Amino acid sequence: MTATLKEFLEACESLGILRFIVTSDMAVLETRGTIQKLFYAELPKGQYANMHQDAFEFHLNMDQVKQIKFETGEAKRGNFTTYAIRFLNEKAEPGLSLFLQWGKPGEYEPGQVEAWQALRDQYGETWKP
Amino acid sequence: MTATLKEFLEACESLGILRFIVTSDMAVLETRGTIQKLFYAELPKGQYANMHQDAFEFHLNMDQVKQIKFETGEAKRGNFTTYAIRFLNEKAEPGLSLFLQWGKPGEYEPGQVEAWQALRDQYGETWKP
Repeated sequence: MTATLKEFLEACESLGILRFIVTSDMAVLETRGTIQKLFYAELPKGQYANMHQDAFEFHLNMDQVKQIKFETGEAKRGNFTTYAIRFLNEKAEPGLSLFLQWGKPGEYEPGQVEAWQALRDQYGETWKP
Repeated sequence: MTATLKEFLEACESLGILRFIVTSDMAVLETRGTIQKLFYAELPKGQYANMHQDAFEFHLNMDQVKQIKFETGEAKRGNFTTYAIRFLNEKAEPGLSLFLQWGKPGEYEPGQVEAWQALRDQYGETWKP
């Protein structure tokens, strides 16, 4: 597999509405949105993927992404399955997580779970960009 | 000054629409919203302030906030002043930043800058909760 992270990020457009989660040692911010119109920049800190939307803005240092992991889980509230993609750093900690965004607990848009599964089948449950 | 971080966070409601920024070593997420309806939880990791809104969700580990800093700056794009509140960890790195949200570059809502200045005058340019 010679897939690049750029290709993978752009393939994530197929997932529809996502929940973006970024965590510092102090705070967690979660916002909902789609991946679209990514643009790239070479900065001293690394190669960045960027997105500007009305409600939020997103920057990813692609050089820090050492592994991608597809993960299902149990929702904390409500009895349903969550579908996540974890972007792991060199310590195998998630610097970014993307969850399929549910409507009512457990309700996904038609085709959303299938798109997540198709990506997982294509890339494997874990892979290194 | 015996102000608590809880009181300070609730005073931040007066700032109107803010830009929340949380940064991991890998990613930056920025979203706009107001501070309102905070609720608190005692978790093993610390005392958390939480907020759930339609478009985003926010969690702050208050025990990790060692210093608050009021900061003005020059916007990267456009020639205007930015007004930020930095929540610094023990390494004096921002785990959370709140910026006054501009509309068109440099345009703030009436009273917004004054509310930021009033908070800074009340708490001081830097203070420890």
